[in-house]
Amino acid sequence: MISLKGIGKICGVSESTVSKALKRNPGIKKETIDRVMEVARQYGYQPNAMVECIQTGRSRSIGIAFNKFQCEFAGAVMEGIHQVLHEYEYDAYLISWDRLVKDKVDLLSRFSRRRVDGLLLFPMALPPTPEQIRDLNRFHNPVVLIDSDWPGNSFDHVGADNRSVFPEIIKYLISQGCHRIGTISYTLAATGQERRSAFMEAMAEFNLPVNARHCLDLSDCWNEAYEGARKLLADKQNRPDALICFNDYVANDVLNAAIDLGIRVPEELALIGFGNLPLTLRTRPQLATVDQFPCEIGRRAAKLLLDRITGKETGNRIDLTIPTVFLPRTSIQFSNKTTQESA
Amino acid sequence: MISLKGIGKICGVSESTVSKALKRNPGIKKETIDRVMEVARQYGYQPNAMVECIQTGRSRSIGIAFNKFQCEFAGAVMEGIHQVLHEYEYDAYLISWDRLVKDKVDLLSRFSRRRVDGLLLFPMALPPTPEQIRDLNRFHNPVVLIDSDWPGNSFDHVGADNRSVFPEIIKYLISQGCHRIGTISYTLAATGQERRSAFMEAMAEFNLPVNARHCLDLSDCWNEAYEGARKLLADKQNRPDALICFNDYVANDVLNAAIDLGIRVPEELALIGFGNLPLTLRTRPQLATVDQFPCEIGRRAAKLLLDRITGKETGNRIDLTIPTVFLPRTSIQFSNKTTQESA
Repeated sequence: MISLKGIGKICGVSESTVSKALKRNPGIKKETIDRVMEVARQYGYQPNAMVECIQTGRSRSIGIAFNKFQCEFAGAVMEGIHQVLHEYEYDAYLISWDRLVKDKVDLLSRFSRRRVDGLLLFPMALPPTPEQIRDLNRFHNPVVLIDSDWPGNSFDHVGADNRSVFPEIIKYLISQGCHRIGTISYTLAATGQERRSAFMEAMAEFNLPVNARHCLDLSDCWNEAYEGARKLLADKQNRPDALICFNDYVANDVLNAAIDLGIRVPEELALIGFGNLPLTLRTRPQLATVDQFPCEIGRRAAKLLLDRITGKETGNRIDLTIPTVFLPRTSIQFSNKTTQESA
Repeated sequence: MISLKGIGKICGVSESTVSKALKRNPGIKKETIDRVMEVARQYGYQPNAMVECIQTGRSRSIGIAFNKFQCEFAGAVMEGIHQVLHEYEYDAYLISWDRLVKDKVDLLSRFSRRRVDGLLLFPMALPPTPEQIRDLNRFHNPVVLIDSDWPGNSFDHVGADNRSVFPEIIKYLISQGCHRIGTISYTLAATGQERRSAFMEAMAEFNLPVNARHCLDLSDCWNEAYEGARKLLADKQNRPDALICFNDYVANDVLNAAIDLGIRVPEELALIGFGNLPLTLRTRPQLATVDQFPCEIGRRAAKLLLDRITGKETGNRIDLTIPTVFLPRTSIQFSNKTTQESA
């Protein structure tokens, strides 16, 4: 791109005259301003955002601490964030949080050096250490947490309602004849804790006993679900007839374990995920799930952060919970029952 | 974060003394330097990257023009890019290219304003217009194109070998007894053109006729494959016995069309994708595919860009082609044949 100096060379004026002309300084002749403007336009000159930032104290950029580039949930959240950033004409720096943690790089130095106006944190594999929280508190610009919260968190937070849908799910499963309902949970994540406790409460509400052998808590929700489910489902005599899974990826793995064991879904095993990710429509049968509206989560988090940055939002800590919607699909719909119902 | 002024207040010295002390200026007393350094460390002071950038003419940041946040291929490329950026201590601005195009925002102004040292372009839904190419040529810093190229492109390019695997695939399919081999292509993308022409050449090499009714060229590779495949597969009398698909997402859609029509895969229809994305292991049967090593593509593209930026690479235009590997899986392996072979 052309510099102020370069424009000056073409127009036969000094760099400082160019700078003044671009600001339509009344001390500069009209024809000089017109000529400078024309050359700037022609050569695609862009003002230096960094100079503006130093002058205004605002970088019009935010930082996003991110991890799972291949995850459809994270991808939808990012899509929502970028929609809003585009509307507000803000840019985003992306930093892989887990990688900084792994290399023991100070979490915030990279963002601080860039003078980002605020921070979106999403999604950490594990809750941060006390040192990391101390670092975050030192960061004097707004911070918004997405999805997983942590106990005592004092930052704004935007996430899904992880609890309300469970009574509806249990009721639906009972209507399909299920009575040995289990869960594949992931309680290392705060969202997973909420989902499991909501599951337990809903089971109690409907007077259904929870059989510990029908429940599995994963210590790694990406790599353990398939093998874990195979073990859990191998016991033909004492096997759940429905499994509510931490998320759609886990439900897909459990579905594959069932298929590979010759267990029919939903006839012998009803399956539900969480997220309503695109993958749920690519499985056969299609996976029942809970819509978390991840794109909306991203939009709301970005909007909240920008409202904090611009001073439009000045109130106390905000905790936004996006309502979720239960989506029954063929992985829990017994075709003969559906036929009876629709008849 | 604390400012130079803030450090000065705590230490009882001026802002300019703090600035000099942080640079270990010999004009400043050792105890002042030590005290300023200690306070800076304690309060997590970070130098302003923008001041450094204005002083050095380097922002140590790059721009990434990106589109598909939920795509596993794009996600793996991003993962590779960020691995390298982390190693080089560079940061990245992310901008949604298609969104700028849709809103007719000047493509490069956002990146130019940030004075990014270089640009990674990936992946555009459609080739750029002549105006966009003109804009790109005006951007005086290095540009590296990822995955899809365009005719006459003069920028560095890193992509997968889209051609070499086809003879091996056709040979394998013939060995499985297939002889009505078709393709679901997407020739709006340059990569799709390469794959389809390589398919045609490989068919000719093995003296197999190409039946136009066994071929389908999508005009939207995200939303048309399922319905297109259903139509193509509905004609029971004249149906392909193998389909080579543009990518793994398309192959997954075709697999679902087959399952929904009651067509057995691979017994009645062998299916192959392209990409080796995680989703190929989540389908049943698991999808045969071609590994494109997208993470490596991202790594090589980022490395090349940074080598251009730092002057380590000064030669002519580079076109890096990452070798691909054909991965036969159960979607093309006939169990009885496999048994005979292994016996």
